[in-house]
Amino acid sequence: MDNIISTPKVTTGPLPASQKIYITPDDAPDISVPLREITQSVDTEPKIRVYDTTGPYTDPTVAIDVSKGLARVRRGWVTGRGGVEEYAGRAIQPIDNGNVKLDALKPFAHTPKPLRGLDGHNITQYEWAKAGVITKEMIYVAARENLGRKHAHELAAERIADGEGFGATLPDFITPEFVRNEIAMGRAIIPANINHTELEPMIIGRNFLVKINANIGNSAVSSSMEEEVEKMVWAIRWGADTIMDLSTGRNIHDTREWILRNSPVPIGTVPIYQALEKVGGDPTKLSWEVFRDTLIEQAEQGVDYFTIHAGVRLAHVPLTASRVTGIVSRGGSMMAQWCLTEHRESFLYEHFGDICDIMRKYDVSFSLGDGLRPGSNADANDAAQFAELKTLGELTKVAWDKGCQVMIEGPGHVPMHKIKVNMEKQLKECGEAPFYTLGPLVTDIAPGYDHITSGIGAAMIGWFGTAMLCYVTPKEHLGLPDRDDVKVGVVTYKIAAHAADLAKGHPAARLRDDALSKARFDFRWVDQFNLSLDPMTAEKFHDETMPKDAHKTAHFCSMCGPKFCSMRITQDIRDYAKKGMDEMSKKFREGGHELYVAPDKAAD
Amino acid sequence: MDNIISTPKVTTGPLPASQKIYITPDDAPDISVPLREITQSVDTEPKIRVYDTTGPYTDPTVAIDVSKGLARVRRGWVTGRGGVEEYAGRAIQPIDNGNVKLDALKPFAHTPKPLRGLDGHNITQYEWAKAGVITKEMIYVAARENLGRKHAHELAAERIADGEGFGATLPDFITPEFVRNEIAMGRAIIPANINHTELEPMIIGRNFLVKINANIGNSAVSSSMEEEVEKMVWAIRWGADTIMDLSTGRNIHDTREWILRNSPVPIGTVPIYQALEKVGGDPTKLSWEVFRDTLIEQAEQGVDYFTIHAGVRLAHVPLTASRVTGIVSRGGSMMAQWCLTEHRESFLYEHFGDICDIMRKYDVSFSLGDGLRPGSNADANDAAQFAELKTLGELTKVAWDKGCQVMIEGPGHVPMHKIKVNMEKQLKECGEAPFYTLGPLVTDIAPGYDHITSGIGAAMIGWFGTAMLCYVTPKEHLGLPDRDDVKVGVVTYKIAAHAADLAKGHPAARLRDDALSKARFDFRWVDQFNLSLDPMTAEKFHDETMPKDAHKTAHFCSMCGPKFCSMRITQDIRDYAKKGMDEMSKKFREGGHELYVAPDKAAD
Repeated sequence: MDNIISTPKVTTGPLPASQKIYITPDDAPDISVPLREITQSVDTEPKIRVYDTTGPYTDPTVAIDVSKGLARVRRGWVTGRGGVEEYAGRAIQPIDNGNVKLDALKPFAHTPKPLRGLDGHNITQYEWAKAGVITKEMIYVAARENLGRKHAHELAAERIADGEGFGATLPDFITPEFVRNEIAMGRAIIPANINHTELEPMIIGRNFLVKINANIGNSAVSSSMEEEVEKMVWAIRWGADTIMDLSTGRNIHDTREWILRNSPVPIGTVPIYQALEKVGGDPTKLSWEVFRDTLIEQAEQGVDYFTIHAGVRLAHVPLTASRVTGIVSRGGSMMAQWCLTEHRESFLYEHFGDICDIMRKYDVSFSLGDGLRPGSNADANDAAQFAELKTLGELTKVAWDKGCQVMIEGPGHVPMHKIKVNMEKQLKECGEAPFYTLGPLVTDIAPGYDHITSGIGAAMIGWFGTAMLCYVTPKEHLGLPDRDDVKVGVVTYKIAAHAADLAKGHPAARLRDDALSKARFDFRWVDQFNLSLDPMTAEKFHDETMPKDAHKTAHFCSMCGPKFCSMRITQDIRDYAKKGMDEMSKKFREGGHELYVAPDKAAD
Repeated sequence: MDNIISTPKVTTGPLPASQKIYITPDDAPDISVPLREITQSVDTEPKIRVYDTTGPYTDPTVAIDVSKGLARVRRGWVTGRGGVEEYAGRAIQPIDNGNVKLDALKPFAHTPKPLRGLDGHNITQYEWAKAGVITKEMIYVAARENLGRKHAHELAAERIADGEGFGATLPDFITPEFVRNEIAMGRAIIPANINHTELEPMIIGRNFLVKINANIGNSAVSSSMEEEVEKMVWAIRWGADTIMDLSTGRNIHDTREWILRNSPVPIGTVPIYQALEKVGGDPTKLSWEVFRDTLIEQAEQGVDYFTIHAGVRLAHVPLTASRVTGIVSRGGSMMAQWCLTEHRESFLYEHFGDICDIMRKYDVSFSLGDGLRPGSNADANDAAQFAELKTLGELTKVAWDKGCQVMIEGPGHVPMHKIKVNMEKQLKECGEAPFYTLGPLVTDIAPGYDHITSGIGAAMIGWFGTAMLCYVTPKEHLGLPDRDDVKVGVVTYKIAAHAADLAKGHPAARLRDDALSKARFDFRWVDQFNLSLDPMTAEKFHDETMPKDAHKTAHFCSMCGPKFCSMRITQDIRDYAKKGMDEMSKKFREGGHELYVAPDKAAD
């Protein structure tokens, strides 16, 4: 029992009626950008292309071997543009895995030698963008955001967006140059560590599709390494754009290595969690040296973004004393305690320039943590929160000067009427760096349903301009999410992100809504399921009331039953609109009951 | 098997740590207003009073006998103010129950003789309000809205609301006179048929707590009468403020009778559904006579509000022809077809004055139906929808002139950026009559999760001023909701309504959030569960990760585990704020690990 050596089992195979396709941008024949194409049940309806976060796991032509990891397509891109060196890397120490024997999982056997940037060269996407260079990652994300459209005119005729962007400018067609400019302006990031070459690049910014993050991670109380790898694959299957690995405790280094080598999406971490493990769990023993060592360890592995709680300054801490829920961020409370104990600014703040220098070498993006975010509606938008935000804005400029990519983390728990000012202040204080929020939860009274309380706030703040939404599962505040919770959390946040895209006026967002609505109206049940975010659940719910296969093609639904159907009547109205009022009146009068399908003809 | 006579089993008993209490307003010693009082686990924390929709079913001192129905407390109120007569009432005919033998349920045996209003007397709450008279119902709802506060000053000291009401004016304390004035202005209604004397009166209006409605009903495809009665009790247990009985088909009259006689909340119906049954399911055979007969039948039973689709005018129908999803309202499509067939305005529109005269006699409130509401985001805010809204505004004034109470139904499917204008137009067109919306759903791509897609829109439109939100369950578009779906739908809509109350700045709404947040911060797990909208689910989720009883009092949670806890650190910060920086720094330095609870002391 002590020496179980196992290989994670992961979920593979395409989603229903879906095919993985790859787009080659005109100007980059060596780049393949994945999309999912959903085929409808009738030839007269178009295939619908949707953004695809699932990686090779849904491509039946790719053999998945998690012990080898995904193909390292980006390795050539990174080395090809120069300015990097391969080197031996930091030696892995027992303390990296919490000083435990690797009893639950063998170490990953195919770890590549790390790369790092050389001084005096462009390394980060931000540096390349500022230098006017369009990288392959920029070409890749442009094609990806266009959902495979190759030319500006492809959508023009059917553009149906009429949203309100609050200053966001969503072009009909995303060019690589548009991407480059957004990154150079600091308004978007491509989190892409030069050592995470398995990555399918994606972009986070206000003028692109709204993204979502799913948190996974073991904990001191429960969960195993094997579960965490599958959780990553499971979360991206349902639409997670990035994954944060919040693991603590045992096997933390090896777990992360398995996840990174098998992840097609950016992986974020909170390095202070591992640093805390290395000092035995006592925040007051944290130091710059152990933190620096951890940054390098994780950067060499390929972590794409780090949450850094450098905005928790000594003077902010007393501002939280009168809160209802004090400091609820783990990283924030560690730093607050450290500051109080040492009676000075944290090593994160004092060494912020050094941190930038390390992160730049690997192109690890900053996710500047909101360690003082409110943990209840009562504490929303208070002095502590906004004091930290101001500091984060100052640090953003430092990081940009050092050549780093930056996004900013936000709350948390905020009632609806206080959400918008969060976005406005963030844009102003942080120079339009992308905002990345947790929810926010719009009420505190529904533990067990906080995917919903937070999904409401997430949709709104996404509309207002937040670039990425960190999911919340039904287990928030109560326990650790299981597989079903992760799925519900991801689907809820896909709803929030997509609702935001619609409201912002993204030029192509409504295509899927309209296709699904049309399928619904035509009683193409199977198309309605397949076009939805969760086809299995939609079909299961349908079958609970009308289980027979014939009902899948029935021209009615269980709400009205076969005798009367409002959608059928609309078809009559359309005929009427075509044929003229008098003729149709006559037909209606003569036809009478014939207008309704009889129960025994329901499958016609 | 053909003659099963059964009595519905209903769910009774209080919610955890909750006690039913009754408030007697100072000026009305004969009135008892129910509230739920939640007791916390420590004496130092106050009991929290919450609005209680559950009726006598959660009062252990009341013996429930559904075959007899609830006590008819309001009978004396109605007869006491005069202007009504008791009469024999319309004889029940086989066609009222769909021409089937009453095989599934015996008729209700204790139906009271109906009352009706006499000409030349005030009958409706609107008429009394206009006449300057404060009814007992108005006193009742004032006390109910105040959550038991008897005086204006009781909340003043702790008023924590800081919302944005968009023109709504929520007073710190609701007086009966404030209620009377809101009703007289047409801005609020108390749906309370003089024949539904089992009712615990409630108010629907923009300047009161946001309410929610749950739909129940059998259908041609499935469900039984017995299930529907329990669904009502189940839905109000979780917080439904009103119930719409959307039954069709067999035993429709008797089902409604059982529901009404056992319902402490207002019951709404769509009478055209039953009228359609009476003409064999063919909308073209509908007539004023059969509709009138149905109105009287249901008014005598005590239905509190009728959805009347009188706004579907002949000229509106062609406006729907180019929609993606045409007409999706059942009532709307019936009327559209009728108009086309007859080539004239519907009998609902032509006989609107007659309908008012009938509804006034029983004080049945109007819920003017939005028969042309959009069924997809593509169709939101189109010409058909807003043309109908304008007509509903005209009809509102007619109904007011006739002495009737009125609310207005709204959409539907609306992307976020198009929600607010719905509210603004409704207020303007309909003279501030209360708005009652279905969702709206902010995207169409998530069948199976439409409680969430619609919960987002419901929270927003509730904030903007909608007075009542019609719930949507996870089964929307797919099938008929079961018991669990009804609960999830109700809880989701309680979240939306409460989030709206918070954002509008309701003076007492945040008390529950703050109490729960404080319990969370203090690791009073049981209080966190009991203060939540769904204590059982919260506790179940908690126990899945940390099942031991000791963990209920653990000063940590499964997210961080026992070794590190951010909330614990905040207590240190508070001590620091009190004791001064230097002293606490010393303590931290000396204490080291002692600040963290050891796993074996977790239950301390």
